[in-house]
Amino acid sequence: MRIVVDAMGTDSFPAPDVEGAVLAARDFGDPIILVGDESAIRRELAKHPTAGLPIEVVHASEVITMDDKPGTVGKAKPNSSMHIGMNLVKQGQADAFVSMGNTGAALSIALLHTLRRIRGVKRPALTGILPFASKQIIMTDVGANADCKPEWLIQFALMGDIYARTVMGVKQPDVALLSNGEEDTKGNMLIQETAQLMKALPLHYVGNIEPKDVLKGAADVVVMDGFVGNIFIKTLEAGTSTLTRVIREELMKSALTKVGALLSKPAFTSVRKKIDPFEIGGAPLLGIDGVVIIGHGRSNAVAIRNGVRQARAAVQGKVIETIRAGMANIAGDDM
Amino acid sequence: MRIVVDAMGTDSFPAPDVEGAVLAARDFGDPIILVGDESAIRRELAKHPTAGLPIEVVHASEVITMDDKPGTVGKAKPNSSMHIGMNLVKQGQADAFVSMGNTGAALSIALLHTLRRIRGVKRPALTGILPFASKQIIMTDVGANADCKPEWLIQFALMGDIYARTVMGVKQPDVALLSNGEEDTKGNMLIQETAQLMKALPLHYVGNIEPKDVLKGAADVVVMDGFVGNIFIKTLEAGTSTLTRVIREELMKSALTKVGALLSKPAFTSVRKKIDPFEIGGAPLLGIDGVVIIGHGRSNAVAIRNGVRQARAAVQGKVIETIRAGMANIAGDDM
Repeated sequence: MRIVVDAMGTDSFPAPDVEGAVLAARDFGDPIILVGDESAIRRELAKHPTAGLPIEVVHASEVITMDDKPGTVGKAKPNSSMHIGMNLVKQGQADAFVSMGNTGAALSIALLHTLRRIRGVKRPALTGILPFASKQIIMTDVGANADCKPEWLIQFALMGDIYARTVMGVKQPDVALLSNGEEDTKGNMLIQETAQLMKALPLHYVGNIEPKDVLKGAADVVVMDGFVGNIFIKTLEAGTSTLTRVIREELMKSALTKVGALLSKPAFTSVRKKIDPFEIGGAPLLGIDGVVIIGHGRSNAVAIRNGVRQARAAVQGKVIETIRAGMANIAGDDM
Repeated sequence: MRIVVDAMGTDSFPAPDVEGAVLAARDFGDPIILVGDESAIRRELAKHPTAGLPIEVVHASEVITMDDKPGTVGKAKPNSSMHIGMNLVKQGQADAFVSMGNTGAALSIALLHTLRRIRGVKRPALTGILPFASKQIIMTDVGANADCKPEWLIQFALMGDIYARTVMGVKQPDVALLSNGEEDTKGNMLIQETAQLMKALPLHYVGNIEPKDVLKGAADVVVMDGFVGNIFIKTLEAGTSTLTRVIREELMKSALTKVGALLSKPAFTSVRKKIDPFEIGGAPLLGIDGVVIIGHGRSNAVAIRNGVRQARAAVQGKVIETIRAGMANIAGDDM
């Protein structure tokens, strides 16, 4: 298996990206292809012990930044590390692409310029894998499609179910719709219409779920439109990071609480690890015809290594093949 | 000024509700009318020093619980403390109604059975007042209308602006739309269409705002549909309470961190106070033709006292009269 790592993905590329690739090559043994500015990559590689590690470098002359507009960057920068990296997957020279870069740009380049969508998929979806609960939870769509139709959400549910089964090893994933209440009568029109369709699907649909139950791990796959999903993950991140900041500020206000904070440090380290999205590394673009894992721009080297781990699991689980087959079946059902 | 307090509102009514009413009567000096089961209220009142305090009791034979369905309870329980309390306001025997009970039921009873909507208001909205940032922020709609039209959101913005000015004393409130990104191109169709209308309104519209900027206090009034708003407040609450729980669990895992937690306690107490919704007491139903303040079912006596404080400010600020005038102006603009 060969995994492409975007060397120009993180906010402080290419240092964490290259170090993460080195960690992945060492820990997993599979070949890693670093794509990006070749001289910059080689400079970073020289800082690490890489003798004997299966790392290749492929040059890409353009860099996509967080400021690039997803809608236009695909055309404007055709030689980006995302283009070249995804094309390596498309041409069968690699099995998966991992990037910590601009998510919207990655989706747009995957969908319109390189890998394209899996036949039968109406809209690809962004996913987020929540680390918060006792188990990992797939949230989809978390930002690709602001206005959705029920039939799209149905497909997000089916693809999320396949990902949970094949990649995360959940035998029978519980699939839920994110809503403002558990009862069938709750939800906006989109959720209510989707709920009716969900009941006919070959998956274990558990109904509506509220945010608090998402965090308790009451479902394995949680489905929503990309606007609501994006607000959900951003609110969760903003809430927890604001609370963390307020706690830190208050702890620093007196000598006594400073000592308390020092003694409590092992607990806080453990908390940080528990809610750390970098432990997961990244989440897939569902519906794209190839494994693409996207992580956070602030990722460190360990997050990139873990993104490669996620990509490996997706390839080993044959998630793309399974979604292809699943979509073909649904198409056969004339949906 | 006379304020009605629902004695049957909190999850553990009537003890916190009655104690809160006593606190309010003592601290503010204005007459309080407690509505609910008279004998239960008198039993609670007997536990507190109330000599000389301006507290009246009005009997209501029915109690609305959190399990009652908002859509039907208005008809099913016509003698509830909510009905009778709101009718006291409608009939001019009191100036405001405060309850920690079932929000949906309160809205439905206000809208369909007692106070009704202010002339010109298309849909009333639930509000939440966020305590998180350096200042208080009005969020609306946080749950009344799952599917909204742009013209409704426009009215939520105008009513929120009036509340911020007249009740919270903000000279020129910054009004924003909650969205998945700051740029004009972000948002779902509802947000994008509403954004166009917002620019023509006589208020200080600052554009789209993301969750993290809401928590930083980048706006005084944040507008969204009731589905998204409900997901927002529930995600925020779930995220911060889950994080708090995880921190507590980790702190209790070793003797060392237990000591740390003990020393850190003043800081945690201060954090809790900062993010405590009970400091605010409750938030208004905007668009209802009378001051109605609804708080959390888990409220304690102090929260109820603070809910009365919020109601007093709304009456003193003449928020209903100002919204009436504002809606009449808009109606004149043929909107």
